[in-house]
Amino acid sequence: MLVLFYLILFNFFVIFVKQFMERFTTKDLEELPSRQRAHLINSISGYKSANLIATRSEDGVPNLAIFSSVVHLGSNPALLGFVMRPIGVERHTYDNIKSTLHYTINAITKEMYRDAHHTAAKYKEHESEFTMTSLEESYKDGFQAPYVKQSPIQIGCRWVNEYPIEENGCILIVGAVESIYVVPELLHSDHWAQLDRMDIMTIVGLDGYALPNLEDRLEYAKPNQSQNSILNGSQKD
Amino acid sequence: MLVLFYLILFNFFVIFVKQFMERFTTKDLEELPSRQRAHLINSISGYKSANLIATRSEDGVPNLAIFSSVVHLGSNPALLGFVMRPIGVERHTYDNIKSTLHYTINAITKEMYRDAHHTAAKYKEHESEFTMTSLEESYKDGFQAPYVKQSPIQIGCRWVNEYPIEENGCILIVGAVESIYVVPELLHSDHWAQLDRMDIMTIVGLDGYALPNLEDRLEYAKPNQSQNSILNGSQKD
Repeated sequence: MLVLFYLILFNFFVIFVKQFMERFTTKDLEELPSRQRAHLINSISGYKSANLIATRSEDGVPNLAIFSSVVHLGSNPALLGFVMRPIGVERHTYDNIKSTLHYTINAITKEMYRDAHHTAAKYKEHESEFTMTSLEESYKDGFQAPYVKQSPIQIGCRWVNEYPIEENGCILIVGAVESIYVVPELLHSDHWAQLDRMDIMTIVGLDGYALPNLEDRLEYAKPNQSQNSILNGSQKD
Repeated sequence: MLVLFYLILFNFFVIFVKQFMERFTTKDLEELPSRQRAHLINSISGYKSANLIATRSEDGVPNLAIFSSVVHLGSNPALLGFVMRPIGVERHTYDNIKSTLHYTINAITKEMYRDAHHTAAKYKEHESEFTMTSLEESYKDGFQAPYVKQSPIQIGCRWVNEYPIEENGCILIVGAVESIYVVPELLHSDHWAQLDRMDIMTIVGLDGYALPNLEDRLEYAKPNQSQNSILNGSQKD
């Protein structure tokens, strides 16, 4: 009985020392059911961008798919990347990009997230996710791929390269930004877009949708001095 | 006078048709002042993950740097990527990773974002960002790189590969997840981490910090049926 008491006490002590953190080793991860492992690994890396990538096949069939992996690569030249899962899982977007070289990246708002999520359903090649949802195609300025009309940020991209990730068969697609359409009220005078003004969402893991509120904007960081907020007044540059 | 009136009317019509969207072409981007272009391109791709990457040099000097480019690559095996700007800009993190192969990824909360932002200041190699801020090193289970004690999610990674992005000199670092420490109250029963329970932040552009609230979690998408919320009850799998 006394042993049990000490065991319990020791357990509490260990938990306290570790600051109540749960640990997962590589072995623990391997032993988790596959779907739970996916939930854990997909959510721990933090909030993800919420975008719809739209393409159109050479036969004219539009395709729309949700992606949470769009990542900034550079601004001069303007380059964005995104990660495609191993080929076979989502062929349509990849095939269309490879055959037409053009695609659009469109921000997902609170009004759009249910339809955006639904684009992950496995429709056949001749079925357009635009038909299956209330999201609408918008063709602008001669660009081959459709934009998503409801999106407050619409980016036209051209495929420039791709990097197969040997470790698991994913592909990093690198695209050049050719056109940006943005609702003007998102933009500050220094061209920084305040995403919460149009309820743009962010994704947690595979299936969570969160709505951020801007808390602060900080000055460029310099050694040995604290950074002031530049939310209510631009930084002298 | 009448011509002016019609011109104004026509203008309003054009604006209405275009749904009040401002357009930037490649040429417009090239002509923007470099800092404004960086603000625009960095913010339009959506919300970004907010993490601190910690390393320790072979000489034992710890280093800490903020990154908004951590991206999920796969969960089996568990792989995370992040993008380093061209070598020369942030040498310490890269040098330490290449010489020791180990680094940690640590979530940034509302309490931490000012210190996290400050780690972007250009300190010298022998100066530790842990000393310059109130962020604390934590060494656990024999892992060579320090974790950030204040972070509710701490991930120990091992370098497995890197992909130089030819187009602009960035490098995609691919790391295997070796250890995860997570505050248990973040985790749902299916191991999905609800990030807003610990005020984990997200980054907008180069310098914006936003705090999300979870709005919803949706069922796995299937053709021709709408997806129910699984926020208040797990999905039958």
